[in-house]
Amino acid sequence: MTVVFFAAGPRAWEQYRDCLPEALAAAGVDARIVTEVEAADRAAVDYIVFAPGGVIEDFGRYPNAKAVLNLWAGVERLVGNDTLTQPLCRMVDPSLTEGMVEWATGHVLRHHLGMDRYITADAPHWDQAFAPLARERRVTILGTGALGAACGQALARLNFPVTGWSRTAKQIEGLTCVTSLEQALDGAEIVVALLPDTPDTTNLLDAPALARLASGAVVINPGRGPLIDDEALLDALDSGRISHATLDVFRTEPLPPEHAFWAHPRITVTPHVAAATRPRTASVQVAENIRRGEAGLPFINLVDRTRGY
Amino acid sequence: MTVVFFAAGPRAWEQYRDCLPEALAAAGVDARIVTEVEAADRAAVDYIVFAPGGVIEDFGRYPNAKAVLNLWAGVERLVGNDTLTQPLCRMVDPSLTEGMVEWATGHVLRHHLGMDRYITADAPHWDQAFAPLARERRVTILGTGALGAACGQALARLNFPVTGWSRTAKQIEGLTCVTSLEQALDGAEIVVALLPDTPDTTNLLDAPALARLASGAVVINPGRGPLIDDEALLDALDSGRISHATLDVFRTEPLPPEHAFWAHPRITVTPHVAAATRPRTASVQVAENIRRGEAGLPFINLVDRTRGY
Repeated sequence: MTVVFFAAGPRAWEQYRDCLPEALAAAGVDARIVTEVEAADRAAVDYIVFAPGGVIEDFGRYPNAKAVLNLWAGVERLVGNDTLTQPLCRMVDPSLTEGMVEWATGHVLRHHLGMDRYITADAPHWDQAFAPLARERRVTILGTGALGAACGQALARLNFPVTGWSRTAKQIEGLTCVTSLEQALDGAEIVVALLPDTPDTTNLLDAPALARLASGAVVINPGRGPLIDDEALLDALDSGRISHATLDVFRTEPLPPEHAFWAHPRITVTPHVAAATRPRTASVQVAENIRRGEAGLPFINLVDRTRGY
Repeated sequence: MTVVFFAAGPRAWEQYRDCLPEALAAAGVDARIVTEVEAADRAAVDYIVFAPGGVIEDFGRYPNAKAVLNLWAGVERLVGNDTLTQPLCRMVDPSLTEGMVEWATGHVLRHHLGMDRYITADAPHWDQAFAPLARERRVTILGTGALGAACGQALARLNFPVTGWSRTAKQIEGLTCVTSLEQALDGAEIVVALLPDTPDTTNLLDAPALARLASGAVVINPGRGPLIDDEALLDALDSGRISHATLDVFRTEPLPPEHAFWAHPRITVTPHVAAATRPRTASVQVAENIRRGEAGLPFINLVDRTRGY
């Protein structure tokens, strides 16, 4: 009997209490799920299901845990925990990717079409301003992991010319992949940031980077808050160099009510809703990794600690 | 020398004066384009390029014109002109289709994601409401012509289950095609109207039709104004049965400032911008039909007068 410690906290348990046992059974894993572990029983824990804000601080107390399975895609709040020496897997939920593609495609089209002026109009208007075609609109995706690649390809299918930037060279059908950040940013009209939060990506979109974008460019951030230098973004919006920013993620979440982003006329705040991990599909991923661990197979979505994702 | 009478009016001529001659030359047609015709020269006109609001009322005065080539996709303002007995072709501009796909996909995603609440928020908020996935959102396209089929397929590629309704049975990859209007409307959550304006389609979306949609459904009309019964729509919006309507086309355009649509909190008006005929690509279509006419080949996009489109 495999012992799975669901340590993501009681609120998460409410969402997973039905579908995680189902997924484990479907994967053929004979498991016992516990949500609390007495000190004497810690050595019996085989797998830890976790999420930031969960009930474990010292992972060293679970010496026989074969893996920590995170319910979030981002692991930046875990990789700094030195007690976590077990293999760490992040969530790559196919429905999370679907949701992100929908959110990113929707907001790119919103800015491409200039929808806001009609949505917020408070008086009759009949100003026929025609958007250019998507194929005339340069889009850049920063980050070409599972989410960035899927978003870039969805936009490319709508005819947007999409440049995808990543640190390591890649080939992704439909995208122009580059490893030069300057090349990715120069003249881009809509930028979508979908990078993980690592020391290398902090403040990637700083003042010099923003200055490379096309005049009037739009910045969309459904990735991680620290990717953008907040002050540099506010300066670029105030000067009009950047015409709008739609931000779903922030250095502090929930975004504090006094933060300048809320009241800025050129910023749209969405409350970290771009993509949700859905318990049903996420449970299938967790169960698959437990099945693999028990069968001696390599884990999927294993975090590379040297890269930080 | 083929004589082409550009009768779409002086404003249109400003847009076409460069690209139409280029397109005719590229098509290998030896043509002379005129924008005015003396009474004595009317019999010499081979083709008429036209648009509603153009400079011809009596097409009978051009007895030798082999075709009237409309610069608009819609021909409802022409088919009632009894003097127009020549073959009538409507515009099927590939860039018009592209623009329509972008507009329709963008507004479907906007409503699917519930963007407006964030775009119009005037105070800090952190209400995390997660949209269902596209694959859980039922979309119906009314009309599966060139525009409707392309929009439906773009939405299907984003995982929306799309039902396409047309009067005649069709098979379109990715869409569930039906000929029963009731079947198309029952339970639909987002409806996109992309039908031509004919006597058969007038007030297609009337009170009984709107009552079939899912509670809180959204109606999007980039097709033609008369497809919707304006009063029935207002009633359905006021009662909350329909949660929002985004309308790009109207019975009278520009939409009069006093019209109830402007001030309604659940209506977004866009000023007939969903798709623009672009002179460069439209000129290629016009030139191709003139080439065909001169070579004795059948015209493309010939209007069927009995159907009205």
